Amino acid sequence: MIDKVLLDFGSGGKASQRLVAELFVTHFSNAELNRLNDAAEVRCAGRMAMSTDSFTVDPIFFPGGDIGSLAVHGTVNDVAMLGAVPRYLSCGFIIEEGLPMADLERIVESMGRAARHADVRIVTGDTKVVPRGAVDKIFINTTGLGEIVADPAPSGDAARPGDAVLVSGTMGDHGLTVLGARAGLDFEAKVRSDSAALNHLLVRLVRAIPEIHVLRDPTRGGLATTLNEIAQSSGVCCEIEEDAIPVRPEVAGGCSVLGLDPLYLANEGKFLCILPEARAEEALAILRADELGRDARRVGSVTDAAAGRVTLVTRLGGKRLLNMLEGEQLPRIC
Amino acid sequence: MIDKVLLDFGSGGKASQRLVAELFVTHFSNAELNRLNDAAEVRCAGRMAMSTDSFTVDPIFFPGGDIGSLAVHGTVNDVAMLGAVPRYLSCGFIIEEGLPMADLERIVESMGRAARHADVRIVTGDTKVVPRGAVDKIFINTTGLGEIVADPAPSGDAARPGDAVLVSGTMGDHGLTVLGARAGLDFEAKVRSDSAALNHLLVRLVRAIPEIHVLRDPTRGGLATTLNEIAQSSGVCCEIEEDAIPVRPEVAGGCSVLGLDPLYLANEGKFLCILPEARAEEALAILRADELGRDARRVGSVTDAAAGRVTLVTRLGGKRLLNMLEGEQLPRIC
Repeated sequence: MIDKVLLDFGSGGKASQRLVAELFVTHFSNAELNRLNDAAEVRCAGRMAMSTDSFTVDPIFFPGGDIGSLAVHGTVNDVAMLGAVPRYLSCGFIIEEGLPMADLERIVESMGRAARHADVRIVTGDTKVVPRGAVDKIFINTTGLGEIVADPAPSGDAARPGDAVLVSGTMGDHGLTVLGARAGLDFEAKVRSDSAALNHLLVRLVRAIPEIHVLRDPTRGGLATTLNEIAQSSGVCCEIEEDAIPVRPEVAGGCSVLGLDPLYLANEGKFLCILPEARAEEALAILRADELGRDARRVGSVTDAAAGRVTLVTRLGGKRLLNMLEGEQLPRIC
Repeated sequence: MIDKVLLDFGSGGKASQRLVAELFVTHFSNAELNRLNDAAEVRCAGRMAMSTDSFTVDPIFFPGGDIGSLAVHGTVNDVAMLGAVPRYLSCGFIIEEGLPMADLERIVESMGRAARHADVRIVTGDTKVVPRGAVDKIFINTTGLGEIVADPAPSGDAARPGDAVLVSGTMGDHGLTVLGARAGLDFEAKVRSDSAALNHLLVRLVRAIPEIHVLRDPTRGGLATTLNEIAQSSGVCCEIEEDAIPVRPEVAGGCSVLGLDPLYLANEGKFLCILPEARAEEALAILRADELGRDARRVGSVTDAAAGRVTLVTRLGGKRLLNMLEGEQLPRIC
């Protein structure tokens, strides 16, 4: 029995074929994939959302997830942020020669489970195996395709003065967890990645409230960076109340020990929703009725005070600018 | 001026934003990309082809191309093999910290040029920068989406006894070129990668001859491996004449010096076409009228002699089995 990934597995030859048949088709099985052509035939209808992400997270297994489930959730969520129902995923593996087969199987199984849960099909894929040292363990790219059901689709440039800013839950969980797992810190037991597929909740939300202006998931760069992008694209000011931002006590504690700011840490199962004030309470009710939106909060509002800026109203009532992430707080977080 | 890629460029923060705005939007500019949302909104119509590939070629620049143009051509071709007009591409970069900015710019410019030439839009992307040593220079994933115009779409399981087997040109050019460039061998000057976008030619072909059963590009594993996949999927025998397979003299020479078989070497600008005998001459005429199909040949036929097998009729008139690639002849060829 072969217990490590060999170069041969990515050759396009017999060993590649066996890997595809025994591992990928087993865990991802669906009519489109199983034909094993160079491309998959998929059915689409009009306006579609397309998104891609490469996952390089280190370590590849961490509390609350692994690189496989993360690769499904991350792209499913990006597609859903356009007010779309994710339908299809492609996946491209780049694997280091010598990766234990057991690790690859665990990752592929986790991807299959995450895809079934999100109700998307992994319809086409590619596997490259590179010599030892040319990549660190395994990197995964996923690209997603979904049917847009919101009209118009929510967009980062659509925030308007008078809108409310909601977050769907606590900030910083994923970032702190990965950092902890990498460093072997002992808060590891208490914090878990929030990695999750948000599409079912998001589709319910945009169907109930078509007036939603912006949906965005605060991944790399965290809430602060995402808000700045929106403020710039929309030419508005986002005014956020520090006190209103939900952060788990254990995450706040871990951050204060390590000198990290949870507003700049990556999240993988949360989103920002910006919509007319009048619909904010209804949106919060929909969010809170779902396990993934249980801790949803209204954190601020959109104004025309200072175009392109994000201001934070601090606990003491002062106001300060909240900037984009500068420098790299934490590489390989997703 | 910053002349190397920094970790910061993949942080999702300010430096990432600048990279996207100054490099990617400049070279790829189109309405879908320029909105810079988490996902791009694209227009689709019914049956679409979706395909993904990760490119890890070493070296990243070689005679006739580079990792950027290859990443566009490879996926455009895979989409086109389903009888589809490629429309949209996503691209995911994984870059090693310290890559010279000049190399990244040259690659991105090359991708932009290849995409314009193939008439596809790069509508969404992702950039990760990983610490030195976690990846070798740069890997690129592209995922493509195209409108299927053939009905039914050509498929690897559709070859039938009585079909003719055509190849669109010479075999082995890409594989030998990359190997030569990697080793610094002196035949480098004479051989060039055949990397090219085949979609315009393919779409003309499937529109003229809707009866085409199989289209497949013989990339990793070469012609021999691709024929074996088709023979297995279709449950037929492919009988190929050694003498008929076009191979450039300089490629044949390089292969014989290095002990390589051009039938197992990767091609990046060629395809196999399997169709009813009665339409073979017409298909050859269409192919030969195009620069990319100038050397097209009929190389054999599909029979029911031995299901799942490929037989080679040798120059001396003998017959031997042509097997799939076993073992890895050449990693990181694409």
